[in-house]
Amino acid sequence: MLLDRINSSNDVKKLNIDEMNELAKEIRLGILNRTSKIGGHVSPNLGIVETTIALHYVFDTPKDKIVFDVSHQCYAHKIITGRKEGFFNEAYFDKISGFTAPLESEYDTFVVGHTSTSVSLACGLAQARDAVKGNERVIALIGDGSLSGGEALEGLDFAGEMKTGLIIIVNDNEMSIAENHGGLYKNLQLLRETKGKAECNLFKAMGLEYTYLEEGNNIKALIDTFEKIKDTKVPVIVHIHTNKGQGYLPADQYKEMFHFNMPFDVETGQSNFDFSKENYNSLTANYLMNKVKEDEKVYIFNAGTPGALTLTPDKRAILGKHFIDVGIAEEHAVAMVSAMAKRGAKPVLWLLSSFIQRTYDQLSQDLALNNSPAVIIVGWAGINSADMTHLGLFDMTMMSNIPNLVCLSPSNKEEYLAMLDWAIDQNKHPVVIRLPQTITKTNRDVKTDFDNINTYEVVEKGSDIAILALGQMFELGQNVANALKQNGKNPTLINPRFYSDVDEKTLTDLLKNHSKVITLEDGSLSGGFGEKIARFFGPTSMKVFTFGANKEFNNHVPLDELFKKYHLSVDEILKIIL
Amino acid sequence: MLLDRINSSNDVKKLNIDEMNELAKEIRLGILNRTSKIGGHVSPNLGIVETTIALHYVFDTPKDKIVFDVSHQCYAHKIITGRKEGFFNEAYFDKISGFTAPLESEYDTFVVGHTSTSVSLACGLAQARDAVKGNERVIALIGDGSLSGGEALEGLDFAGEMKTGLIIIVNDNEMSIAENHGGLYKNLQLLRETKGKAECNLFKAMGLEYTYLEEGNNIKALIDTFEKIKDTKVPVIVHIHTNKGQGYLPADQYKEMFHFNMPFDVETGQSNFDFSKENYNSLTANYLMNKVKEDEKVYIFNAGTPGALTLTPDKRAILGKHFIDVGIAEEHAVAMVSAMAKRGAKPVLWLLSSFIQRTYDQLSQDLALNNSPAVIIVGWAGINSADMTHLGLFDMTMMSNIPNLVCLSPSNKEEYLAMLDWAIDQNKHPVVIRLPQTITKTNRDVKTDFDNINTYEVVEKGSDIAILALGQMFELGQNVANALKQNGKNPTLINPRFYSDVDEKTLTDLLKNHSKVITLEDGSLSGGFGEKIARFFGPTSMKVFTFGANKEFNNHVPLDELFKKYHLSVDEILKIIL
Repeated sequence: MLLDRINSSNDVKKLNIDEMNELAKEIRLGILNRTSKIGGHVSPNLGIVETTIALHYVFDTPKDKIVFDVSHQCYAHKIITGRKEGFFNEAYFDKISGFTAPLESEYDTFVVGHTSTSVSLACGLAQARDAVKGNERVIALIGDGSLSGGEALEGLDFAGEMKTGLIIIVNDNEMSIAENHGGLYKNLQLLRETKGKAECNLFKAMGLEYTYLEEGNNIKALIDTFEKIKDTKVPVIVHIHTNKGQGYLPADQYKEMFHFNMPFDVETGQSNFDFSKENYNSLTANYLMNKVKEDEKVYIFNAGTPGALTLTPDKRAILGKHFIDVGIAEEHAVAMVSAMAKRGAKPVLWLLSSFIQRTYDQLSQDLALNNSPAVIIVGWAGINSADMTHLGLFDMTMMSNIPNLVCLSPSNKEEYLAMLDWAIDQNKHPVVIRLPQTITKTNRDVKTDFDNINTYEVVEKGSDIAILALGQMFELGQNVANALKQNGKNPTLINPRFYSDVDEKTLTDLLKNHSKVITLEDGSLSGGFGEKIARFFGPTSMKVFTFGANKEFNNHVPLDELFKKYHLSVDEILKIIL
Repeated sequence: MLLDRINSSNDVKKLNIDEMNELAKEIRLGILNRTSKIGGHVSPNLGIVETTIALHYVFDTPKDKIVFDVSHQCYAHKIITGRKEGFFNEAYFDKISGFTAPLESEYDTFVVGHTSTSVSLACGLAQARDAVKGNERVIALIGDGSLSGGEALEGLDFAGEMKTGLIIIVNDNEMSIAENHGGLYKNLQLLRETKGKAECNLFKAMGLEYTYLEEGNNIKALIDTFEKIKDTKVPVIVHIHTNKGQGYLPADQYKEMFHFNMPFDVETGQSNFDFSKENYNSLTANYLMNKVKEDEKVYIFNAGTPGALTLTPDKRAILGKHFIDVGIAEEHAVAMVSAMAKRGAKPVLWLLSSFIQRTYDQLSQDLALNNSPAVIIVGWAGINSADMTHLGLFDMTMMSNIPNLVCLSPSNKEEYLAMLDWAIDQNKHPVVIRLPQTITKTNRDVKTDFDNINTYEVVEKGSDIAILALGQMFELGQNVANALKQNGKNPTLINPRFYSDVDEKTLTDLLKNHSKVITLEDGSLSGGFGEKIARFFGPTSMKVFTFGANKEFNNHVPLDELFKKYHLSVDEILKIIL
């Protein structure tokens, strides 16, 4: 294989065009080998192979800096820059992250996993280069889908006023994760159709120089284009037209499914993953599809990740105008649903925990200050072994400390559906519902009225020890209660339901005949639920033991390790509290 | 006065053009009367008087909805819609907010005080109107300065794909709060110069219909323009060219100073406010201006509010390229300083507490995950009697629960300057410094080494009761300590300095001979500093009393009322803890 002699960008510079085309084929084998076995971003990485080779051929990496937006398209870059084992050798798969990681290689500039950040980061690198009198080139590589994010648009606008060299490659594969949404994509289409010659040009309107390349999967054309602009003294947009999924027919045909795919059969493209099992996403999707049929005021919103929510194209087609993907524009989504709710419609915004982080100010100002009765569902939340860029640990802390937001955490499936029903049909509060990660069986009737906000449910009334087990942690709470009973105790078990505030009455009642309180939560303890309980009991003699995640960015740490570290087991909890 | 018979938009419809021009003059008197006496937004409100009259003439408000972006330009609207007493009668000044407020009037659609939200809110109103089968018109009024904010750009992009009636008026007065920054302003200039005819057009590139009006302060022309588009079936941009400060020479000449002004003499335009008194803003500005001279790697960043930080045009001129106003683009600013710090420069980003809320995800992903040693100064933070849209209560909660951020809260001026010096010159951590609101005299030497992060300073070692008095609250902590001494106690007084984490060693030491801990903080208790202390001591017999603000949106509540409500006085604290 040619790849045997490719260990750095210097090795790419020794190849001729034919060899580089051969290299592209070999890189694609690596991408498919890894993703078919452990899943990953397939089609965006396949589409950018030629660009990556051309970049390493033309530029002097790692001195010259490439910032990969969201880094869904860094696999070829990793294969070229000394990390091919992570794609060809199964034993190394977990050593190499799917995102850019400076700790892995000096070729990676930032830890990146959220979209729309590359232009701003590249602006900073260019400004700092001048400040420290360096002379490296700075390149941002951003997909068309990421352009709809506010941070990217702010970055482009700022770059349009900079007077220094900076290259922004817009990788236009005509798709976001799913289809693109937003008016600017009509302009990208016009630019593609006119081979970049249309006068009306978003990038020029932002004050930027601009050049277009139709053949975005042609290494020779890419090299020629990059050579022409590589020593630019001003920010320049290089708009390249590429094909998402290039070189692998199933990914080329099913671009959305292969954006991020679970393990699959390379021969057929068939997924090896069982999607039929019920989970909170499918449960939510089914519920909402029915709800829309019943009530035409219900609108479902998402920001660019419908597939992750099981809202596949067929379901979206059924939902019609009642499903609105705003594109990667979470801030807009929160403001928009707030206004819709204010005007009497029933919007439900469904986002992932990690991405709701992009909306703190909109949650506070557009939504909470206006007390608009919109509903927000937070998915992918809780302690998990995700990449450090996609943790579900911080949404509770972020949202529960904003006034007026009513935050709910269901303890089981039935309670969740009751909460969702209540939230959509009430018109008093902005309501956040945090999806548990796994469906647990709790075999009990649930209360279905949530009008008395911030009131907890006392499931079992006992004495001495009270367990406040929030949401996903309710099952563990039950298990702790049972273990305590076996130890001759008679614990109180509470399902708090709400994590936006303390239930002063229920907590005050506990003071009568309890000496210890245990809180269990599926998120960061810092700023979270347990701390509110600890503050409430601070001036009293009640002892409070809080269990949850540390304030830290974990990175692909196995779940059992995390649970052990955080003492989230019956044995550990009993050891600590008794 | 004509205004005597103007009590609603219907009354405007009865006027002819001459009368409306007369009305404009009278409205300006009201604006100047109020702002000269209690301060407020002067020049943006003066510039939009004619537009406001024309809007109420053409549209059927309050059925038709106007969303005022940031609502810096809602005074004429308030005067027309039944609230003129708030401008002409001093006794009513504090009854009428300077921002849109639905509780005041059905003519106001949202509580708004942050920029760049109007387009998204208007999109939601339009979508909901269709969902509930209404037929009102929806108008967003947004200034050119607000266009650089990511939320506004996301909103425009989304609107560009909508297929329903929506009017977006871009009020182009060629200024943000200070001068505009960003490449898109070159496009606005081109559009003004070509009277809207240039092919390259930011709004068209976002997929929007577009019309231009040069005479943005001409009521007749405005009415004609609005009549033409009022029944549009698609989103349309109406780009109007207005003059900030129109009709009052001092405001016309000194547009930035009069953007928001403290009380002034209407005759001369001279401010009646004493700006010479040293405060944390002037202290910071002076420090940074010297620092930039010493170290050319230092760059000062702000997002659109330099005047609020005392960085007036003369100081900005001296700072030259070392001062970077990114425009209203806080997200971009955080990402950019992160990258600059990573590349060896020394960026300092200075934002206001209320606006740093716009950057949670950038703080988390771009900055903290990458552990970039940038410095962020948070101003206007703490318990104050601000408008509910500009509270300084939530920054601590928001930032202190993000891993890796080192958060500092100085107890006096000397300590603050030492922290700033340390933060800029270290290269290990992203550092946040929270400015106290007032300079207090504490008469003591401060430690100037902060390398041991999250370690507290024990100022006085005592027993039984320990006071942890954070930042601005240190003086109150000292006073509580003195009062306790007079009660025969020997309290421990601690200056925590850091609010990002607990100092386990110092807290553990307290367990030896203390039974009570008091925490004092100048922000929301929910998710804040005291809760971290309460959690630490939760499993012990230590009693913890936390003092700070409730989790709530206050609105112009006098400071003494708030301090009373939150028990923030020596007497109240002693009463509670003893």
